[in-house]
Amino acid sequence: MATVGSMAAAAIVVMGVVINSRDKTIQCEVDARRASPAVDSAPAFVTAELLKKHSTEDSLWVAVNGQVWDVTAFAAIHPGGAQVLIDNSGKDASKLFNGIHPPDTLKQQVDHVRLVGPLDPSLVKKPGQERDEEQERIAAKRATLCGVDSVVSVPDFERYARDLLTDDAWYYYSTGADAEHSMHDNMAAFQRVRFRPRVFRNVAEPDTSTTILGVPSAIPIYVSPTARNGLGQPDGEVAVTRGAADAGIMQVVSHYASKSFDEIAAAAKEGQKIGWQVYLHPDRENSAKAIKHAVELGAASIWITADTAILGKRERERHMHTKREEIPHGTPMSRVKKTYATHDPSITWDDIAWVKSLAPGLPIIVKGIGAWEDVVLAKQYGADAVVLSNHGGRQLDTAASPLKTLYDLHQNRPDLLHKAGLEVYIDGGITRGTDVLKALCLGARAVGLGRPFIYAATGWGSEGVEKAVMILQEEMDIGMKLLGVTRLDQLGPEYLDCSKL
Amino acid sequence: MATVGSMAAAAIVVMGVVINSRDKTIQCEVDARRASPAVDSAPAFVTAELLKKHSTEDSLWVAVNGQVWDVTAFAAIHPGGAQVLIDNSGKDASKLFNGIHPPDTLKQQVDHVRLVGPLDPSLVKKPGQERDEEQERIAAKRATLCGVDSVVSVPDFERYARDLLTDDAWYYYSTGADAEHSMHDNMAAFQRVRFRPRVFRNVAEPDTSTTILGVPSAIPIYVSPTARNGLGQPDGEVAVTRGAADAGIMQVVSHYASKSFDEIAAAAKEGQKIGWQVYLHPDRENSAKAIKHAVELGAASIWITADTAILGKRERERHMHTKREEIPHGTPMSRVKKTYATHDPSITWDDIAWVKSLAPGLPIIVKGIGAWEDVVLAKQYGADAVVLSNHGGRQLDTAASPLKTLYDLHQNRPDLLHKAGLEVYIDGGITRGTDVLKALCLGARAVGLGRPFIYAATGWGSEGVEKAVMILQEEMDIGMKLLGVTRLDQLGPEYLDCSKL
Amino acid sequence: MATVGSMAAAAIVVMGVVINSRDKTIQCEVDARRASPAVDSAPAFVTAELLKKHSTEDSLWVAVNGQVWDVTAFAAIHPGGAQVLIDNSGKDASKLFNGIHPPDTLKQQVDHVRLVGPLDPSLVKKPGQERDEEQERIAAKRATLCGVDSVVSVPDFERYARDLLTDDAWYYYSTGADAEHSMHDNMAAFQRVRFRPRVFRNVAEPDTSTTILGVPSAIPIYVSPTARNGLGQPDGEVAVTRGAADAGIMQVVSHYASKSFDEIAAAAKEGQKIGWQVYLHPDRENSAKAIKHAVELGAASIWITADTAILGKRERERHMHTKREEIPHGTPMSRVKKTYATHDPSITWDDIAWVKSLAPGLPIIVKGIGAWEDVVLAKQYGADAVVLSNHGGRQLDTAASPLKTLYDLHQNRPDLLHKAGLEVYIDGGITRGTDVLKALCLGARAVGLGRPFIYAATGWGSEGVEKAVMILQEEMDIGMKLLGVTRLDQLGPEYLDCSKL
Amino acid sequence: MATVGSMAAAAIVVMGVVINSRDKTIQCEVDARRASPAVDSAPAFVTAELLKKHSTEDSLWVAVNGQVWDVTAFAAIHPGGAQVLIDNSGKDASKLFNGIHPPDTLKQQVDHVRLVGPLDPSLVKKPGQERDEEQERIAAKRATLCGVDSVVSVPDFERYARDLLTDDAWYYYSTGADAEHSMHDNMAAFQRVRFRPRVFRNVAEPDTSTTILGVPSAIPIYVSPTARNGLGQPDGEVAVTRGAADAGIMQVVSHYASKSFDEIAAAAKEGQKIGWQVYLHPDRENSAKAIKHAVELGAASIWITADTAILGKRERERHMHTKREEIPHGTPMSRVKKTYATHDPSITWDDIAWVKSLAPGLPIIVKGIGAWEDVVLAKQYGADAVVLSNHGGRQLDTAASPLKTLYDLHQNRPDLLHKAGLEVYIDGGITRGTDVLKALCLGARAVGLGRPFIYAATGWGSEGVEKAVMILQEEMDIGMKLLGVTRLDQLGPEYLDCSKL
Repeated sequence: MATVGSMAAAAIVVMGVVINSRDKTIQCEVDARRASPAVDSAPAFVTAELLKKHSTEDSLWVAVNGQVWDVTAFAAIHPGGAQVLIDNSGKDASKLFNGIHPPDTLKQQVDHVRLVGPLDPSLVKKPGQERDEEQERIAAKRATLCGVDSVVSVPDFERYARDLLTDDAWYYYSTGADAEHSMHDNMAAFQRVRFRPRVFRNVAEPDTSTTILGVPSAIPIYVSPTARNGLGQPDGEVAVTRGAADAGIMQVVSHYASKSFDEIAAAAKEGQKIGWQVYLHPDRENSAKAIKHAVELGAASIWITADTAILGKRERERHMHTKREEIPHGTPMSRVKKTYATHDPSITWDDIAWVKSLAPGLPIIVKGIGAWEDVVLAKQYGADAVVLSNHGGRQLDTAASPLKTLYDLHQNRPDLLHKAGLEVYIDGGITRGTDVLKALCLGARAVGLGRPFIYAATGWGSEGVEKAVMILQEEMDIGMKLLGVTRLDQLGPEYLDCSKL
Repeated sequence: MATVGSMAAAAIVVMGVVINSRDKTIQCEVDARRASPAVDSAPAFVTAELLKKHSTEDSLWVAVNGQVWDVTAFAAIHPGGAQVLIDNSGKDASKLFNGIHPPDTLKQQVDHVRLVGPLDPSLVKKPGQERDEEQERIAAKRATLCGVDSVVSVPDFERYARDLLTDDAWYYYSTGADAEHSMHDNMAAFQRVRFRPRVFRNVAEPDTSTTILGVPSAIPIYVSPTARNGLGQPDGEVAVTRGAADAGIMQVVSHYASKSFDEIAAAAKEGQKIGWQVYLHPDRENSAKAIKHAVELGAASIWITADTAILGKRERERHMHTKREEIPHGTPMSRVKKTYATHDPSITWDDIAWVKSLAPGLPIIVKGIGAWEDVVLAKQYGADAVVLSNHGGRQLDTAASPLKTLYDLHQNRPDLLHKAGLEVYIDGGITRGTDVLKALCLGARAVGLGRPFIYAATGWGSEGVEKAVMILQEEMDIGMKLLGVTRLDQLGPEYLDCSKL
Repeated sequence: MATVGSMAAAAIVVMGVVINSRDKTIQCEVDARRASPAVDSAPAFVTAELLKKHSTEDSLWVAVNGQVWDVTAFAAIHPGGAQVLIDNSGKDASKLFNGIHPPDTLKQQVDHVRLVGPLDPSLVKKPGQERDEEQERIAAKRATLCGVDSVVSVPDFERYARDLLTDDAWYYYSTGADAEHSMHDNMAAFQRVRFRPRVFRNVAEPDTSTTILGVPSAIPIYVSPTARNGLGQPDGEVAVTRGAADAGIMQVVSHYASKSFDEIAAAAKEGQKIGWQVYLHPDRENSAKAIKHAVELGAASIWITADTAILGKRERERHMHTKREEIPHGTPMSRVKKTYATHDPSITWDDIAWVKSLAPGLPIIVKGIGAWEDVVLAKQYGADAVVLSNHGGRQLDTAASPLKTLYDLHQNRPDLLHKAGLEVYIDGGITRGTDVLKALCLGARAVGLGRPFIYAATGWGSEGVEKAVMILQEEMDIGMKLLGVTRLDQLGPEYLDCSKL
Repeated sequence: MATVGSMAAAAIVVMGVVINSRDKTIQCEVDARRASPAVDSAPAFVTAELLKKHSTEDSLWVAVNGQVWDVTAFAAIHPGGAQVLIDNSGKDASKLFNGIHPPDTLKQQVDHVRLVGPLDPSLVKKPGQERDEEQERIAAKRATLCGVDSVVSVPDFERYARDLLTDDAWYYYSTGADAEHSMHDNMAAFQRVRFRPRVFRNVAEPDTSTTILGVPSAIPIYVSPTARNGLGQPDGEVAVTRGAADAGIMQVVSHYASKSFDEIAAAAKEGQKIGWQVYLHPDRENSAKAIKHAVELGAASIWITADTAILGKRERERHMHTKREEIPHGTPMSRVKKTYATHDPSITWDDIAWVKSLAPGLPIIVKGIGAWEDVVLAKQYGADAVVLSNHGGRQLDTAASPLKTLYDLHQNRPDLLHKAGLEVYIDGGITRGTDVLKALCLGARAVGLGRPFIYAATGWGSEGVEKAVMILQEEMDIGMKLLGVTRLDQLGPEYLDCSKL
């Protein structure tokens, strides 16, 4: 009982990072404690009092599903950041854990975590017991959720999703960095650009289809990689995979998906192309394994995120947490002793070659460019495509909107936007077919949508994803006809008035 | 009883489209069903259950005024679009139908619709029976509606009309496309332009009159064509015809008028000039007949709408519908099997010559231009006038405001704006005399108002229309005197500060 | 009794227009009616029923202070416009009349009005009887009005005044034309201009004083002419005259003052200089008399208003009236049969010479210029000063703000702004000392404030006026010191950032 | 008892101004009054009635902690201005006094104030007695104040502080001049500037540290001098001194600190560098003493405020006062007889040399520059650094934002911003790390924050100050990594899009 035993050799997936499993014995600390005088009368489990003591950076214990784990060493490399471990140490974090991770996540991190022993059984909540007011609210809403055809526009999905998400999920998804200027301006930028439509052209047969790095797409839209889709509905990214297949667009899966790459690949339809997004971690070997595994699973392309040298400060989310768990009067200020780099902050352009070497023949996309000069560098260093993005306003607040960055690129290096062996995408703030058309007028080949697909899947799973695409496709069809074009390559800056952008 | 009998040879009017009537026998399906074993015990009418079954695109039945019609084949060419037929199939649509169409509309579509038989009499609502809460609200409001002299400005009409309109009518009239950016910006654009008035000029006798393609007009305003005026008051377009005559301005009648061209022509005063607007349908012959009939009835001019290759997405209206008729939990998503082209999307500039051949000698106006370059083409292909317009913000959202398009034209091709054998109008967002003056300063010859006249007629019929013109005329009179001009041709860009447009 | 008798020969003042009195007998219509069979049994007074019949443009009777007058012929030349006579015909207008006019106004218009006879005594309200809810509200507010030192800024006066004014007065004073864009933008324009202050200059003794056309002024501010100050407090313009004297600034009296020129001149302190504003009426001789009378009374200057060829449309005021006196259901639309020109719309620049001939040696100011080109003309035709103004936003809505017009003048003809024998003022939207400084930086010599002084006098009479000046003077003193100047002629465009104007 | 007695010879500190104490006998007026017939039956104390009589500028008495003082002569040189003395004369001002001043302040002003005698004992409030509703509110809030780690961003401090401050303190700190346009625009200006971040640069080790005039600083931020920190918490500036030391940034102490320079210097850590800000008073010798004393106490630098030739008009604060102490109905307007110059308004650039002579070898900083041209002069006259500032929007309203002034400097004289022997700082509206980065991109070496540190200390004393710095440092760390820089001198205008500033 004090030993977890040997684990089968298999591909182990920890929060989207695939590593090779190893046979490993985890020594239970409870045994050791039994032998020590201080705890010899202690029962063979971890008491609440003992657990609570291990809630500092020097010793971090968390209880998950009845077992207590020591994650002190793991904090430094936890892909979700050390802070969430610190915040949830010394207590039962089952609910949060289960919302994000596959069940065997901790056991598979045997190199970095240590099983302490079972939690005091009287503290272990049975399934269903932890159902709280929030869950009641959500269950009631879901029981009466209207049919998906009630959804008229992509922004509708967000309104429905709010009611179906826990606060944790809602604030995680919806928050931007700092005061959220960039998040809101991403949308506003599209409204500042006006159309100059043309009439009396034969628009009987508009074609919204395109290819994205050679992958056919029903519309010039792909699913942007977003983390932890499992917070919104149990099928997580897999629901999106199915919806994207039905809708005929490409999904790019996040490194931090709630579902493993294997699960997602298994859910894909025959011939369905999926892009894989990776973060490069300080433990570069870890990233290398992830990339190679994605290649083995048939990834269509590798997307490297460039704008997360450190995670942005999501203030609204933090406020939600401090409001919910107020720090008592008189508690002295904590002074951080260590800092953790979730992602490798020392990446340079030269690393593109390294990624290419791991994924020979696959297109490499650099995601998160915020100045046109970096598009020049991306091409120079061999990227096949770039995503102009400020990460949905979640990273550097007041970073320019992607549409403005695209406009700047168009003004300074129009040669890079047309038939130059480099595809340019943008993401952030896109919710309508007309937004897509504007991006294409300025030279983008396609655009990514992230949050909208999460919200769509939250309400209606794969059907929601498909519905979102149907809405956008109808809007693009209308928009193209009313602009006077029938093929996407007819779009150009002459259809726009950018004087107020 | 099973046969509708022969119809008199006469001009048949179907929703504004005049076709020649033909003697035709419509075989009643109920007869056929009687002879079939499956229905031999069925009563000689259509039950609610049977009716409900025919509510898919494969078979669309609608009950209207006690009769059930099969409109499956008609959907593809229904001028109001297929969707409304689909939405109202399988049920009694009398109320909606009667609000829009002349009584004999369906019988006259003998080539496309088929009479199924009488509706189960127990389901037929007697007149008055269908009076519901909405009708009660409206009746109460109308009973106490103040005299028209309470109206101080054109926007007032809209506020009064809201109380007098059904939700269906209100949302149909008032909604713009998507997020309604263009609809609102149409108005805001006028406010961004400032006047530079001149003083100490003799302005004792300002003259607001002009001619529009040779038709004298008391003010440089015409009634823009708007569909289905009958939703607002029983006299529909005819009330506008009378009010326009009293006020001394020109009405342009919509192809989708609630009243037939004949009724409208009959209501016109001796010598009253009326413009006729046409949509070109996929069944081009149908449009040809409509044009020819308008010519026979003495149309002053033919207005071809250019910006409706497809109907815009009216989100606010759709939201009203989904809110009112919520789709039940669990209803699977509908996947559209067919698409319908309400209007011919393959129109090109060459079609102007075709229209001209149908209306020899009549001026042809192209309505719905959103980029100055198309004004150049319009002139080149023989148009006599153009309307710079984004269809009141109902078609392509975020299309430039007409005033901005006019300004661009003025900046790029001022030669087209003055004495060039081409008249330029704008419509959209105009509610005040000063708006009109600004358009004329930038070279427009006249402007069109649509919604305001609908709202004015909703409250006070022809008197409301006349009052609206009186208000605008007073405002123009004041505006001209305060600008320092007495004739419209004295207006020019020197009276404007467009630096913030 | 049926004869009003002979009136003494004296200067007669009718709403600011001075005419020579004449001995005149007014024949009472009641006598005539007595002799007619139709009324021979009628009592010797006008019944309510009879009065009500005379409420059309063909025959306008009004009851004032127990007498009924026929003002049909007078409507065309009523300085306040015909409409107010029409609106108040057929009823007792004593309350409105007494709020605006000196008691003997009607008797002195013997050329144009006719005494019909006494009103039915049972209808005559005794003083105090007509005290209504509105009066109660105002009396209560006034009884507890705080001391004037509670006022911190000029906008405060407006807030206090709202409670002390009747609706008639409030809407008359506060309303702008149409949607009031200009009225609001007048203020906003000042906020769009930013200061560029300089430091470390000796600012120990700033001097806010100046001269306005040679008249010394404690600050570069004068009281703009505003009509009917008597609506706000019983002393009307006289309170302002006294306050201006105490404060050391110049008052310009409106042609439509509630007090006669004589009363105002009598209230002036020894040596106090007062400007007189005139409207030129269609009856030009009437205006000539007014100007000559002002000259005789010692006017310092003659201000000709140029921007009122017709009165603007004050929508908010009209809405107040239609809301209060709703026109009953079913009342047919009135169609105006005659139009009235309150002011002479045929004035031209040549008329300046005519005014000069009537006021030899006095400076002539043209008030109400809205385009810099008219400043050039004003100088050319001999004006001594101009006021750039859009009449407080009450005339042509969306006319450029005075500050923008001044800026345009500065950009196009800076030579006209400095030592060119022409003084340039602006009015409209000025409420703070910094506003004044900005105008002077762009070349204005002084600025006028209208509404603020009305509101100040409403609350605290002459003391309020003086307080307003003290506030503005303190603000200017602070502003000059913080800008780094000590004399007004040191102000220049280098102290401003106009990039967002 | 009638004599206060001789005071010890010691450095006397009056509101931050250090003067040498002198042995002085203060004759009590009560003695003199006893001998006079008019008051011979008067008890040996000042009655409320007598006190109240001395509330005019001719004779100002104030009661403080049981003693009545005659401050008539002192008003002219009171550093806080004469008005506050006038406002509080004739009554017991103990509460206000104790909130701002050290206890012996009045006794030490023996040259300028005179002890009248004891206040009627029945009027003297015992400590605790004066605890009012406001104090109750604050005490309750403070008793439950959450731990400082609940604070997520710098603006949070203000929200918490509002509940912990008296109205007097809140309005004193938070108010800007006039309508507060500058105060708000200071913040908004930062939002109008957008980032152009760069990716794939090695940002593993960003360094936020710098030096400010040679003083090392953990981040390029210093504590701006702000008056009367004691209104917020009892330790006043001393709490800030300790927090700044812990956080590793420099404090600049206000001339009007609640704590004496000696107290602050005594609280400083070994080696902690503190800047001293001085206002130059009309009594220049007074200022000289203050500067010399600061030098003796080891000041790191002398900061001369340039933008307070006169104090700005803080309207919101004045409104609070007039609302709380309404002036009764009928009170006549007060007409100021004397004006007081709190600060010397005759300072010129030449005075920099004078200051330098008093603080040989110390850097001199000119604080409060609002136009780039004055930076040129500052350098020319020997300043070592300048602060572009509009005094937090508290002085000249609508003065340009510091960021705009910096931008103008960058556009006109970039040579002054880089390695030119002059350091340029800005203050006003800075609340986030990204704001700091933007200022540095445009050439500032550091920025000052004032109000945020007051609010932080109000809630949590020195810990609050340290927390504020930690938050800003984290934000700067994130911002630098996401911009792609690791050292502050890598920041430049190429990282910004200023097109909307």
